[in-house]
Amino acid sequence: MAGLKLITFSDAAGSRAGVLLEGGRVLDLAVAMPPARDMLALIESAPGLLSAVRSLAANPPAAAVLPLSAVTLQAPIPRPRRNVFCVGRNYMDHVAEGDRTRGITNSEMPKFPQFFTKAPDTVIAPGELVPSHAGVTEWLDYEVELVAVIGTAGRNIPKDKALDHVFGWTIGNDVTGRELQRRHGQWFKGKSLDRSCPMGPVIVPREDLDASDLAIGLKLNGEQRQSSRTSKMIFDVKEIIHQLSAGFTLLPGDVIMTGTPEGVGYAMQPPQTMKTGDVMELTIEGIGTLTNAIGD
Amino acid sequence: MAGLKLITFSDAAGSRAGVLLEGGRVLDLAVAMPPARDMLALIESAPGLLSAVRSLAANPPAAAVLPLSAVTLQAPIPRPRRNVFCVGRNYMDHVAEGDRTRGITNSEMPKFPQFFTKAPDTVIAPGELVPSHAGVTEWLDYEVELVAVIGTAGRNIPKDKALDHVFGWTIGNDVTGRELQRRHGQWFKGKSLDRSCPMGPVIVPREDLDASDLAIGLKLNGEQRQSSRTSKMIFDVKEIIHQLSAGFTLLPGDVIMTGTPEGVGYAMQPPQTMKTGDVMELTIEGIGTLTNAIGD
Repeated sequence: MAGLKLITFSDAAGSRAGVLLEGGRVLDLAVAMPPARDMLALIESAPGLLSAVRSLAANPPAAAVLPLSAVTLQAPIPRPRRNVFCVGRNYMDHVAEGDRTRGITNSEMPKFPQFFTKAPDTVIAPGELVPSHAGVTEWLDYEVELVAVIGTAGRNIPKDKALDHVFGWTIGNDVTGRELQRRHGQWFKGKSLDRSCPMGPVIVPREDLDASDLAIGLKLNGEQRQSSRTSKMIFDVKEIIHQLSAGFTLLPGDVIMTGTPEGVGYAMQPPQTMKTGDVMELTIEGIGTLTNAIGD
Repeated sequence: MAGLKLITFSDAAGSRAGVLLEGGRVLDLAVAMPPARDMLALIESAPGLLSAVRSLAANPPAAAVLPLSAVTLQAPIPRPRRNVFCVGRNYMDHVAEGDRTRGITNSEMPKFPQFFTKAPDTVIAPGELVPSHAGVTEWLDYEVELVAVIGTAGRNIPKDKALDHVFGWTIGNDVTGRELQRRHGQWFKGKSLDRSCPMGPVIVPREDLDASDLAIGLKLNGEQRQSSRTSKMIFDVKEIIHQLSAGFTLLPGDVIMTGTPEGVGYAMQPPQTMKTGDVMELTIEGIGTLTNAIGD
């Protein structure tokens, strides 16, 4: 059985949470279950409201169902309450391809995850344009990533309890200005350009999807650029949550991007960048496809 | 004339903005001017409400004045809306002392500022305890920093307009887990331990204080550890705002920590850490003193 697909969407009546149903239909939670009308409220209530939402989605009341074509998808969490947490260099073949661009041929496995952030306002919806940032970067690149959405607060979370703190999974595109990332040493500058974090299209609850070995990939203008499996992460989601939460309280609604596999543009021969009109399609098995184009 | 000293404070009636007056008195803006009761609202309204606050502070209505002893100071912005932005390695003597710990004796001047972040929830009030984080870090260190609070939104801000976007100045303590900072490569993990960002005690409006050449220092348990001037920054506040805002929209209420001068514990011979009971006193000329102790 396919997993529940939670969305945030908008129309003339505003933005609210819903469920993507079969047959191009949307269950409007603002109508069907007002306490779950906001994704962050739904996440904070879990598992309470989530099981009720699941029941409703199985037998959706007609008055609360809209055609998908009549609404606009938002990012599942349109504006996280604090910066998006990210992990760098978390697939060995991506570490190696990056090292090769610096003349390093015998890459070492990272011993600890490298955490950095993107501002909450970088998050944009499926289908929205990622600016080219002409004049700021000459080297815009893509990165498909599995995203863990935190459901339950915790600090010093042991590895064997880490998945209990995950509400669900979505897809993120860690769009990066490569020369900014390099020249500023710390990565925030190159990673936090306006509108550089497409996210979505849905959150699949953790109970519905084992994310430990999913196909993950990205096409640029139809050409397959990235193709791997989440099982190839160096630090898996449990380890990431364990280490990130050391002395640091994770909160419901926190968004953690778990790193990208090999195949990024900057490591190609010759190195590739993106230009206005380029279309990025990111797919993770069991979640869906997130599509955004470059444009101003 | 001393600058206006804006504060956030709390008592049994809750948290609100105010002005620290001479003689240990506080002007309660929730009483004197309700639209300015919240520091973020006051910042967003600037210069409108700020000039009215200034007039009120010059002739404070008795009904809106409280003794400082009856209230508790909060951080001026108790919970920023997104991560605190920070600049690393921004005083040459601090770059050099850090390099020496890695055996580098001919330090090069950084060519670009290194931006990283601390989670908004790391911010704590003057006087609050910074946890020792025993079991997570063995190497807690202090860093006194001038903090620029953004007042006006902007992107791609030219250097000569940068100060127009500053609402005011405060003091920040970028408490750091040194071995975490090092081993994770990217600095977020070592820089974002819970309650590791004391801030305050006041915001002085930019019009009231030229921050380009202020004495800045820190005492640990009464011993002077850091002592420099803000004029020794490698990238001054104008340059920081110019570069940070490239392709990235700064928002009112954003908080930017501008780097620490030499004298941190990890660069001492032998290297020093902090332990429960240690008291950090951070002073910047024209702003005041921010005092916090380590304790669990």
